[in-house]
Amino acid sequence: MPLPGRWLTSLLFRYNGKMFLIDCGEGTQIPLKQAGWGFKAVDAIFFTHYHADHIAGLPGLLLTIGNSGKDTPLDLIGPPGLLWVVRSLLAICPALPYEIRAVEMPSQGSGSASNSGAGAGSDMPPHADIELYGNLSFQYAQCDHNATCYAYSFHLRRQGAFKPERAKALDVPLGAWKILQSGEPVSLPDGRRIEPDMVLGPARRGIKLCYCTDTRPAPSLRKLFSDADLLICEGMYGSDTEIGNARQKKHMTFGEAATLARDAGAGELWLTHYSPSLQNPSEHLGAARRIFEKTYAGRDLMSKTLKFAD
Amino acid sequence: MPLPGRWLTSLLFRYNGKMFLIDCGEGTQIPLKQAGWGFKAVDAIFFTHYHADHIAGLPGLLLTIGNSGKDTPLDLIGPPGLLWVVRSLLAICPALPYEIRAVEMPSQGSGSASNSGAGAGSDMPPHADIELYGNLSFQYAQCDHNATCYAYSFHLRRQGAFKPERAKALDVPLGAWKILQSGEPVSLPDGRRIEPDMVLGPARRGIKLCYCTDTRPAPSLRKLFSDADLLICEGMYGSDTEIGNARQKKHMTFGEAATLARDAGAGELWLTHYSPSLQNPSEHLGAARRIFEKTYAGRDLMSKTLKFAD
Repeated sequence: MPLPGRWLTSLLFRYNGKMFLIDCGEGTQIPLKQAGWGFKAVDAIFFTHYHADHIAGLPGLLLTIGNSGKDTPLDLIGPPGLLWVVRSLLAICPALPYEIRAVEMPSQGSGSASNSGAGAGSDMPPHADIELYGNLSFQYAQCDHNATCYAYSFHLRRQGAFKPERAKALDVPLGAWKILQSGEPVSLPDGRRIEPDMVLGPARRGIKLCYCTDTRPAPSLRKLFSDADLLICEGMYGSDTEIGNARQKKHMTFGEAATLARDAGAGELWLTHYSPSLQNPSEHLGAARRIFEKTYAGRDLMSKTLKFAD
Repeated sequence: MPLPGRWLTSLLFRYNGKMFLIDCGEGTQIPLKQAGWGFKAVDAIFFTHYHADHIAGLPGLLLTIGNSGKDTPLDLIGPPGLLWVVRSLLAICPALPYEIRAVEMPSQGSGSASNSGAGAGSDMPPHADIELYGNLSFQYAQCDHNATCYAYSFHLRRQGAFKPERAKALDVPLGAWKILQSGEPVSLPDGRRIEPDMVLGPARRGIKLCYCTDTRPAPSLRKLFSDADLLICEGMYGSDTEIGNARQKKHMTFGEAATLARDAGAGELWLTHYSPSLQNPSEHLGAARRIFEKTYAGRDLMSKTLKFAD
């Protein structure tokens, strides 16, 4: 539940002028306003699942986005059930000045629209890359929760470095370099077509941002999060002594999240989605850091700029 | 919209161990938690209308009330449309450990379930008293807004003073005085039945609490609020210069609310439901107080104990 002093779990990220939100519990629009990035550029909202603490803020946010002057389509993306849930919630925001496109991503294996969580925690590989915007794509995998729930991985590709010596060897005029550098092909006056890969080195490491809540650790997640730069992961319970609760309620302890981050080879772990009874998450960081050193306790409005490696 | 530092408009009141809420916008459960009265004793939620800023917080609140251990029925009361809206919002809180009873109060005159606002602002008298709990009853009247919207008046009756001389004259034993004082009849050993009004003076002035938002001033409201001890009333716009906006959007200026309070003979007026652009409501109190002196600017968690007059 939203608490005085702690909002529900959500992630907003920005790339090249567009914004993407994951989950929207009751009140999420308030810290979004505090973040000061505006609402108009929200391009898509992803949902992990449809428990109220992850979606109850949607009607209010849609109305506030409407007040921002947005008039381009907004994509809503999530597990099966999205169309029904969104149609239900729109009962209290009937008229919006932009188009809503709800896309249900098929659940793993079965492709069924059941909400049973069947197939959860399987060893299936993540779904293939889905293009989102520009050089940004995403994958998803099924969590192990008591509802069909997805974890997400966002990948920003980075093309190879521009090789001037190759461009010179191909007699590409200077004026066309910038186009090739940006990844577009060029047709020269002499009839030749120059493809970017003719003047670029091998693709370089991009940026990988991963997000999961609510779930038990699952092999599918380790694969999805492999080599993530930043993993934002639930840590419902601080202490290892609460493992029984975590198993029963299909959540994780800090230690389990840290183990997942370590096994996936993540660069950094932010914990989130704390139990309301967990007053001071930092108290439990020590044990988690013995498993995975770069573990941090997420907090409201925590933010970071992720940059290419070099 | 909910703002950093200002919650959406809502009223919680408590009488004899039970709590009653009016409206539940996004985030309302957070100041309710801050108020510290708990959630278990919430007995009924009234709705003025179903615009998102007055109902979007319902699913989250219902779940939080569920977590409080409540297992007695919860009444939801509002204009026609309630059943459909509640059924829609329950999409994200399917299992609650208590019964929900949604009661649509017929709209004035027509009794139709239309949401057109037809008949709004009419000169019709308020609906008759409806018993709520103990000595508490309520009335409602139709507002003048761009949706069917109700204003509410809650009335706590107060019986007459106990007259010991009458009880003595009737030979009522001392042990039965307390029962009669509490308003219950008593059967004596000699076969006589003593009714409370045989030993009580005339009914005394009770307490009248009134609430309205969103609306233009309307004759029906003046009647409903007649002689209120406390009127909590929308004041969307501070300055009289915004009367055009107020008329167009079917809201009120501070001056209009003060006029309504004065004409109804209210004891005290609390303004609420400010426009997000109204940063500092107190700035505009001076003009309103020249119309009705006991005008106050409502703020989050503002509270007052209303007592019988003597």
